Amino acid sequence: MIVYFRPMRYKDELKKEAIIEATVKLVNEIGFVSSSVSKIAKEANVSPATIYIYYKNKEDLLVSTYVEIKKNLSIALLKDFNPNLPIRDILQALWLNMFDYTSKRANHFKFAEQFSSSPFAGLVNKNEVEKSFEPVISILKKGIEQKIIKDVHLDILAAFIFFPIYTLSNSRLCESIKLEKETIETAFTLAWDAIKL
Amino acid sequence: MIVYFRPMRYKDELKKEAIIEATVKLVNEIGFVSSSVSKIAKEANVSPATIYIYYKNKEDLLVSTYVEIKKNLSIALLKDFNPNLPIRDILQALWLNMFDYTSKRANHFKFAEQFSSSPFAGLVNKNEVEKSFEPVISILKKGIEQKIIKDVHLDILAAFIFFPIYTLSNSRLCESIKLEKETIETAFTLAWDAIKL
Repeated sequence: MIVYFRPMRYKDELKKEAIIEATVKLVNEIGFVSSSVSKIAKEANVSPATIYIYYKNKEDLLVSTYVEIKKNLSIALLKDFNPNLPIRDILQALWLNMFDYTSKRANHFKFAEQFSSSPFAGLVNKNEVEKSFEPVISILKKGIEQKIIKDVHLDILAAFIFFPIYTLSNSRLCESIKLEKETIETAFTLAWDAIKL
Repeated sequence: MIVYFRPMRYKDELKKEAIIEATVKLVNEIGFVSSSVSKIAKEANVSPATIYIYYKNKEDLLVSTYVEIKKNLSIALLKDFNPNLPIRDILQALWLNMFDYTSKRANHFKFAEQFSSSPFAGLVNKNEVEKSFEPVISILKKGIEQKIIKDVHLDILAAFIFFPIYTLSNSRLCESIKLEKETIETAFTLAWDAIKL
């Protein structure tokens, strides 16, 4: 039985991936309102009926795409995560991982950002998303407890330690700076100086 | 003659404003591709012919809307600008002005941000936009010269001193924090610590 199910599941995952990529592409190009299930199906090269196997409706597809992107981001972010290193080193590793992810997956990031300020944002199970970022939140809280990091709301810390990356890695916004490793590390010193006590 | 022309010009400006607001609204809702001149005209309650009096084509309308938003932002930012104050105080005033603007004009900011990462961004006369921000750029350069501000690329400084504001003032992203004056000032200390030498 296992031998039989494996290739099926693999095929399923490829299809789901194609649907998600098509959703991201279409929403980024024509927006949430115009992106219909039938257009997304066409873009993903599957039938609309296939989409309805995995997703209840358009809303479910959009929300699931956002959650999937957030989970993938957390996995990329936490690559080689070592909670025993000094906090500055942990955050620098997260910074570099996030840079790598956002420059490779700018389209996913763009979707997530648009989604966050859309009416669909209210439909996300926030606990589910936050759970994947738990190790990052723990490190920030630990830093606050140890009086290494400023005792301010986590959203404020995030606005300085994670969001500048998006601005900097969005090449059209900042086409004048070359994002070499040195520049990225320089930018991290600003992020660290912002949040450190 | 002057008496005759004044109300005409006033009427013109009202029309242009309606067209720009309609462009912002429609692009934010349905994206750049689907926003046609005829749909924008309908939204602005003018005829398509009226739009073609002021703008050559859709591209010209989009680019002009972006430039207009950037100019308005610079005017709001530079309210009560006093280059003789200490640099920290000048930047704090800019920070508070920008907060005020982005929270009132979140839709303009959203348009500008989407525009910056669209193919239309390449059509903007950058010198024209940068000129309106000249006083801000001068202050940052002066701070670098006086060894008060870190000597890094202006885009990196901007990523810490201006962009976190957008993240923080976007209420759907950060609905958990109350943006009272105290919180905004706390966030400024992080921005200042990031860029100060």
